[in-house]
Amino acid sequence: RALHRCRRPGAEMVELPFLPFCALLGALGVVCVAFVSAWCQQWRGGFAWDGSAQMFNWHPVLMVTGMVVLYGAVALVYRLPLSWSGPKLPWKVLHSALALVAFGLTVLGLVAVFNFHNARGTPNMYSLHSWLGLATVLLFSCQWLAVFPSFLLPWPPAWLRALYKPVHVFFGSTILMLAMASCVSGINEKLFFSLKNGTTAYAYLPPEAVFANTLGLLILLFGVLVLWALARPGWKRPEPDSVDTRQVL
Amino acid sequence: RALHRCRRPGAEMVELPFLPFCALLGALGVVCVAFVSAWCQQWRGGFAWDGSAQMFNWHPVLMVTGMVVLYGAVALVYRLPLSWSGPKLPWKVLHSALALVAFGLTVLGLVAVFNFHNARGTPNMYSLHSWLGLATVLLFSCQWLAVFPSFLLPWPPAWLRALYKPVHVFFGSTILMLAMASCVSGINEKLFFSLKNGTTAYAYLPPEAVFANTLGLLILLFGVLVLWALARPGWKRPEPDSVDTRQVL
Repeated sequence: RALHRCRRPGAEMVELPFLPFCALLGALGVVCVAFVSAWCQQWRGGFAWDGSAQMFNWHPVLMVTGMVVLYGAVALVYRLPLSWSGPKLPWKVLHSALALVAFGLTVLGLVAVFNFHNARGTPNMYSLHSWLGLATVLLFSCQWLAVFPSFLLPWPPAWLRALYKPVHVFFGSTILMLAMASCVSGINEKLFFSLKNGTTAYAYLPPEAVFANTLGLLILLFGVLVLWALARPGWKRPEPDSVDTRQVL
Repeated sequence: RALHRCRRPGAEMVELPFLPFCALLGALGVVCVAFVSAWCQQWRGGFAWDGSAQMFNWHPVLMVTGMVVLYGAVALVYRLPLSWSGPKLPWKVLHSALALVAFGLTVLGLVAVFNFHNARGTPNMYSLHSWLGLATVLLFSCQWLAVFPSFLLPWPPAWLRALYKPVHVFFGSTILMLAMASCVSGINEKLFFSLKNGTTAYAYLPPEAVFANTLGLLILLFGVLVLWALARPGWKRPEPDSVDTRQVL
């Protein structure tokens, strides 16, 4: 019976090739980065690294690029059919290297907002957006702390890897989801801050508001598509039939 | 090989019984509803249905209750081991009835905020929070529109049900995720609105801010636990081995 249930693990939807989907997703990711950069350049005064509002502008750009778009790429590495045969190590290295870049951009994104606040004497870490954002980055750090002993060092026993793998995979998706919620609350908050005195209020939907709201929806669409690709059984990497990995599937 | 992969579908994590988990989740859901009600009662002036700020207060309470807590219960109906044997129809009826109540509360939650805006002459539907929230409710409506012809009427062919089921399941989780992001952006926005003139500003973290931020994190924790329970292979309803349903597993 249990065997029967799995007879056609990839047939639950109309077949869809991964690579064209991936190209589409890549294009959507580029659009997200372009939108957030254009918003900050066109309406928020552009970029600098000096504690000013132009320094703050790096915060949304680095967070969308690191915690959403690049993070999505990190999550999808093992979905590349190319990674399914041959040794797994090069793909582990790619997954980790991309995650390291994503994490680096995220930390820079935090530096941008903390420096901006500190230069103006604004308190840090009071809004729900900031609590959620920091919790998301801390969970991302925990993935690093746990992954080193379990996957990247040679000595941990197979049962430990088998136990930890689904946890790593689940938190991988969860962190992306929390990053999406952080972005939405951050864009919403920034528009309420910016669109009042001297500009058309947010409530009257000036072009900037329509543009940045659209950015928020595009980020959500990107994230949902990544989560969908991750969840598709037919796109998961078939693991070799060894005793130590069989149980984690 | 494909058979091998599925030999122990429920053994990927340490075994955890569903019912105690469910009780914990139910308690967390009650805490979320209690927190959002206490916030509106204690700090935002309580409840009324008259277009005033007291009418607005129904908006967060109804949304958290309908779109998150009750919606979570709707999603988990088929995870009850009790639902795995015997006819499926009573569980379909329960799933649909709970979803109808959740949808009803959600519509009332929309009425509360639209009436409040209209009574004060505030424009509707400008913030990213409102765009995302309405998109989430529209997706919820689409689930209803699609589910009637596919699951609740007797005539649709088996291949149509088999094709639609994973779509319904995926959008089920996605809508919960979007509802979580809507709640977070809404709480964040409301605190920026409320905590300024005449009160301690949000930036100085008065008790209300700490309380409502905590509510936001509790909602996320509840939602993530529901999504985790939905994703656990060992907790999924084993479908009977008939030709028409085998492929959707």
